[in-house]
Amino acid sequence: MIVIRDTATLREEIKQRRRAALGADVQVGLVPTMGYLHDGHASLMRAARKQSDVVVLSIFVNPIQFGPNEDFDSYPRDEERDLALAEREGVDIVFIPTVEVMYPGPTKTKIQVSGLTSRLCGASRPGHFDGVTTVVAKLFNLVQPDLAFFGMKDAQQVAVLQQMVQDLNMPVHIVPCPIVREEDGLALSSRNVYLSEEEREQALVLSRALREAESAVTSGTVKQVTDLRRQLEQTIGTSSLALIDYVEILTFPGLEPLDENMLLNTIDQDLIIALAVKFGRTRLIDNIRLQKAEVHAYV
Amino acid sequence: MIVIRDTATLREEIKQRRRAALGADVQVGLVPTMGYLHDGHASLMRAARKQSDVVVLSIFVNPIQFGPNEDFDSYPRDEERDLALAEREGVDIVFIPTVEVMYPGPTKTKIQVSGLTSRLCGASRPGHFDGVTTVVAKLFNLVQPDLAFFGMKDAQQVAVLQQMVQDLNMPVHIVPCPIVREEDGLALSSRNVYLSEEEREQALVLSRALREAESAVTSGTVKQVTDLRRQLEQTIGTSSLALIDYVEILTFPGLEPLDENMLLNTIDQDLIIALAVKFGRTRLIDNIRLQKAEVHAYV
Repeated sequence: MIVIRDTATLREEIKQRRRAALGADVQVGLVPTMGYLHDGHASLMRAARKQSDVVVLSIFVNPIQFGPNEDFDSYPRDEERDLALAEREGVDIVFIPTVEVMYPGPTKTKIQVSGLTSRLCGASRPGHFDGVTTVVAKLFNLVQPDLAFFGMKDAQQVAVLQQMVQDLNMPVHIVPCPIVREEDGLALSSRNVYLSEEEREQALVLSRALREAESAVTSGTVKQVTDLRRQLEQTIGTSSLALIDYVEILTFPGLEPLDENMLLNTIDQDLIIALAVKFGRTRLIDNIRLQKAEVHAYV
Repeated sequence: MIVIRDTATLREEIKQRRRAALGADVQVGLVPTMGYLHDGHASLMRAARKQSDVVVLSIFVNPIQFGPNEDFDSYPRDEERDLALAEREGVDIVFIPTVEVMYPGPTKTKIQVSGLTSRLCGASRPGHFDGVTTVVAKLFNLVQPDLAFFGMKDAQQVAVLQQMVQDLNMPVHIVPCPIVREEDGLALSSRNVYLSEEEREQALVLSRALREAESAVTSGTVKQVTDLRRQLEQTIGTSSLALIDYVEILTFPGLEPLDENMLLNTIDQDLIIALAVKFGRTRLIDNIRLQKAEVHAYV
């Protein structure tokens, strides 16, 4: 495994790996992360290792996707541990640029995906997704991967990036990978380290609310969008520390909102239930996808 | 020369050309155009032929860079003549997509370059450069060229695209090529066909104003930005049909405006004088670059 910190060396290394194949196909897989890696990231690296000849991991806490009052400065970092984990997972190239390498001057260019970014985290975190699409496009242009692996915990991010790739004809395939959870159900996140013991305990309500919602839909206990939302809010409300940012039931990947009175079994698309809830100063997100067949199961 | 009209065949053809080189460097040169080709475009193809192994010409009248009251529908088109010219200039691949091929659905993704796009044609044509950067990024992603050739008649376009490439780390080098003019000085443009005989005659005032401005600067006849602007406006004013959209003196490639009282010989950057002037319903642009050394010549 080699560690690269500048763009010229990165480009040259990838070029050499492709050239060495003498015209044969070399699949380059990219796993873009902000570091402080956990088993969720490990699952992305494993998927990349399985599907690619060359696995590139990028570690970069991207300032332009953080709002002015968000946790850019305090975002957890541990390069040594990250490198050990990457090595263990068989990563070939780790790209760890500084902010100055990625943004030598203030960037005048932004990529905006409209519509998809207006709801969920896009509404709570204005400008967040412009920062994500812009930095991911930069990483794509630097690495020129064939495949790029993203976790479904950031489901909106996956939908937004897929839209960007499609609209801009980017020569890369986005591979969404399943959410990885602790045994007790908490979705893995680098931000979980912020949680106090009590918050960590109460945060379990998120995965529980999602599981119960799924059962209620597949069993037909809830029939309308509004009932589903009410049940989710009630479950989350049982946690005294939970402060709801949003509870949304949308189509996936289009992220279109649904009429509150709509009957779930008349919806002819996959759905996503997405939550963002604060526990103390820590904002957690989680989601579950309901496939069309699942939503219609109780009919 | 082969003509390709869909994206999958284009990608495959480029891939094959690169693969055939068995790991050796293949320089792919792209000349993006809106067709109705003239000698200005031919000069781009010749530059591309000289510097590239594979020359790709794209012909696409891009709807999203036209405003609602602009000339998208009437923009001149002549595919047969364009193909003959491309063949003559040694183009390898011509890519001629339809609007449906480039935009299968409404695009949700836009690339915006701020600052550089707020003046000149960006001010007169709101949204124009978002359309240009977006379609050029799409073409770059489809062709993956090493070099891309653009005429300096659209100097602001060159500056904006260079900024985009730099900010997004696009793996392509923008090659600006000199303006090509008719013998009498009129800058070549597909839109020149719109001009009546009288308008065509009067449009010569643009290149004359730029030439006279250049002489005035290099000889020291005008000393301040304001004097230079006044002289340009006076010269253009001698044409009864000319309706000035803008006369701008800016730094290049930063396109920063200058204080009107500034002494030209104190400016430590290259400059550009850029004009947009309407003759009847036809809006023409032209420009001249003044290198720092030229501006300081009379000191």
